[in-house]
Amino acid sequence: MAKRAETGKTIKMVIAVVHDNDAADLLEALTAEGFQATKLASTGGFLREGNTTFIIGSDREHVDDVLAIIKEQCEARSKTVAPMSPVANSLEGYYSFPMEIKIGGATVFIIDVEQFVKL
Amino acid sequence: MAKRAETGKTIKMVIAVVHDNDAADLLEALTAEGFQATKLASTGGFLREGNTTFIIGSDREHVDDVLAIIKEQCEARSKTVAPMSPVANSLEGYYSFPMEIKIGGATVFIIDVEQFVKL
Amino acid sequence: MAKRAETGKTIKMVIAVVHDNDAADLLEALTAEGFQATKLASTGGFLREGNTTFIIGSDREHVDDVLAIIKEQCEARSKTVAPMSPVANSLEGYYSFPMEIKIGGATVFIIDVEQFVKL
Ligand code: NI
Ligand code: NI
Ligand code: NI
Repeated sequence: MAKRAETGKTIKMVIAVVHDNDAADLLEALTAEGFQATKLASTGGFLREGNTTFIIGSDREHVDDVLAIIKEQCEARSKTVAPMSPVANSLEGYYSFPMEIKIGGATVFIIDVEQFVKL
Repeated sequence: MAKRAETGKTIKMVIAVVHDNDAADLLEALTAEGFQATKLASTGGFLREGNTTFIIGSDREHVDDVLAIIKEQCEARSKTVAPMSPVANSLEGYYSFPMEIKIGGATVFIIDVEQFVKL
Repeated sequence: MAKRAETGKTIKMVIAVVHDNDAADLLEALTAEGFQATKLASTGGFLREGNTTFIIGSDREHVDDVLAIIKEQCEARSKTVAPMSPVANSLEGYYSFPMEIKIGGATVFIIDVEQFVKL
């Protein structure tokens, strides 16, 4: 587990905006793999209402692992919703057939860190 | 509307700290022009209490458009407050003449993004 | 007090994740030294629950001063807790001897800013 950001390593900052629904799973998966992340309350824009912004520190060699974890936990995907289920009822109109809805999605920025320090 | 940040483009991250009062108009104006932004709850420092921090993704060619929108919506400006109006009453002291107060203002950082991914 | 970030200077962005308990002192110390900071509500990860993320703007020459202030206010440190004190009682188990607990700590990223603008 040499994945943790440490003083002296070449560190990248990964800023990921994900759906609230995926945030808890993402934090758990990142932590299980030794990455450190902080969650910022955020709203609007990149993914409509209800998103969470993560700041994740990673050494250069493990950035691809971070991206893979975000993809696994948060990638945009379709879900079939049964008619007259609570989710379907919260949508506009009335549906008597199963419906496909889009959930998830992530917007990820990888930023170079000039200096990284743990105090 | 080729302004949206997309995987593969050279992307810049614009971090803007603006007054709460200007935040809703800014988000609307950015969205109307095809920019994606996320809002973070924030307080203190750059603009006294009551500010909002935006993270805005833009391709390199449209960063100046983002700055122009922030300037239009958020630039520091003076406002004349009538004596004995609710705003004037909330200020210290007593004013029998119209007063100029300062509102708005924005602090903007433009950051290079090494890699940008939408999942 | 030439420490304030100003349009036209070479600016660095310091992102610091610190414990909630140290956040008010840090903001006060930064402001007293002429630095501008904004606080973002954040949770989890870098320092367990209850942290605050600061975005601090500094010109290049004063970044070391920012780090020194963060170190002074937030560095990880031990504290001796008296047995049967409220803090000791909130820990698991029962302690009849004074205990050392760890408090504080900070994770700091220094980021290059391509362009800095005050509006
Ligand atoms: Ni490793
Ligand atoms: Ni265009
Ligand atoms: Ni100075």
